[in-house]
Amino acid sequence: MTTAIDPAGYAQRYVDEVAQELSALNVTPKVVGFIASQDKPSLAYARATRKKFADIGIEYELRRVERLELEAEIRDANVDPDVHGIFIYFPVFHHQQDDYLRNIVNPEKDIEAGSSFWVNKLYANDRLAVAGDPKRKALLPCTPLAIVNLLNELGTYTPGNKPLAGKTVTIFNRSEVIGRPLAVMLSNDGALVYSFDEYGPLQFQAAKPAETEIDRQQALATSDIVITGVPVSSFPKISATEILPEAVCINFSSIDNFDANVIESASIYLPRIGPMTVAMCMRNTLRLYKNFVLHE
Amino acid sequence: MTTAIDPAGYAQRYVDEVAQELSALNVTPKVVGFIASQDKPSLAYARATRKKFADIGIEYELRRVERLELEAEIRDANVDPDVHGIFIYFPVFHHQQDDYLRNIVNPEKDIEAGSSFWVNKLYANDRLAVAGDPKRKALLPCTPLAIVNLLNELGTYTPGNKPLAGKTVTIFNRSEVIGRPLAVMLSNDGALVYSFDEYGPLQFQAAKPAETEIDRQQALATSDIVITGVPVSSFPKISATEILPEAVCINFSSIDNFDANVIESASIYLPRIGPMTVAMCMRNTLRLYKNFVLHE
Repeated sequence: MTTAIDPAGYAQRYVDEVAQELSALNVTPKVVGFIASQDKPSLAYARATRKKFADIGIEYELRRVERLELEAEIRDANVDPDVHGIFIYFPVFHHQQDDYLRNIVNPEKDIEAGSSFWVNKLYANDRLAVAGDPKRKALLPCTPLAIVNLLNELGTYTPGNKPLAGKTVTIFNRSEVIGRPLAVMLSNDGALVYSFDEYGPLQFQAAKPAETEIDRQQALATSDIVITGVPVSSFPKISATEILPEAVCINFSSIDNFDANVIESASIYLPRIGPMTVAMCMRNTLRLYKNFVLHE
Repeated sequence: MTTAIDPAGYAQRYVDEVAQELSALNVTPKVVGFIASQDKPSLAYARATRKKFADIGIEYELRRVERLELEAEIRDANVDPDVHGIFIYFPVFHHQQDDYLRNIVNPEKDIEAGSSFWVNKLYANDRLAVAGDPKRKALLPCTPLAIVNLLNELGTYTPGNKPLAGKTVTIFNRSEVIGRPLAVMLSNDGALVYSFDEYGPLQFQAAKPAETEIDRQQALATSDIVITGVPVSSFPKISATEILPEAVCINFSSIDNFDANVIESASIYLPRIGPMTVAMCMRNTLRLYKNFVLHE
């Protein structure tokens, strides 16, 4: 029997590191967060993010905008020399138009690293932000990076070149911003990754996808790590009877994709990852500032 | 009472124009069509496309690939000097990964003009393929362009600068590849456009979106033109009782979004637009060849 783990403790170490480096550099990057939602919990969450950034010395301006103003606002911030980072609270329009907005953010200010510019660098195994300059490292998308670091903190990673060698992972989500980059990253670290979306499974090894006939039950029965991000209530929650007793279970969906009984069966269970994702956005803010402001 | 109109007749004029220009130029562009589907009707459709292209003097090579090979195949074709046009038969993975594939096609070979490169030019009102060169015109995405040309052929356009001035249009679909660019194009031509997706309506005037509270019934009751592209059977089909008797109705979805009774009520009814879309792909093939091969 285990307890649900709060990721905030693990995140704090990363937050402190960013704070210390900002202090040592004696700089104050400025981030603008755009929120088009009128929804009170969303606004409360946005204000909490603002405070977290401000607490470590990143100026964070929250701008409430109408959704139809957002594109013009992003384009203004893209070229405003006083703005060093841009964050958008999604969903705005839902579906493809949100991808459009994500992709018009200036990559040099994209602290979530969710635009195609950064995700495609991951897929191309291009580790540099600027070709030919090994000092300027590419960014990784925040949420997959948060999950990788949490697995590391939880002791799931072993030392060495392929820290997940011999491990099997199942991920329910193959979105372009989270699930697919995560499958590539974890398989790059040595894991065999089963990736499910509503159209079926793929398996990833060493960043390469392959077809597989495996089903949910078979994949879960062999998985050391189970990661879920399915924000629909029709997804059948993962039950304790489906997973290994030593499984590490992580949910990053807005609704919990695990049944409550998982808490008594899994060795480790994280119902949310938000604080680590925020920490990774902070780290990306610092990296962008070093890459594109201090460098110039 | 009307009859369903076959767009093939209207498309033929455009096809003939492309054939004549290719003959006058004495060139044979080569297009590669990639199909990852094993589905027999999809393959039959792809073979029919190949024949249409070949008939007017465009070499069309159909390449059957596994879906996981497609990315590498596209990247090869992108840099192959013997390939002048690329077409992908979607869906492949469905959802976002198909957008990823659409966007890795070299814009200079993207005959469907569905990649962000071309659609963003439309949104930015940038009419040029290459900045500063007024001889090289930008491409427009095939399906919206096909619908605009069909409306023109059907007599819905009036001469002048704003050929749809005073007209109201309702579109069910606001995808980034079809519905949103179409709303922008028709509103640029003077129409008031109501654009619906599953999250609600927007209205477009002079290419600018605005919020609106209008519902389906109100929008349809005032629309001179109704265009549908909702490929799900749960969409309630549009009935004769909802539309104006003089309405022009066009369906571009793979399933017909109009009730059978519409044929007896609408003044004009097009259950499909495929042949005109193919004609626009041919025209785009020619334009790309002139812009990026002959020009060099």
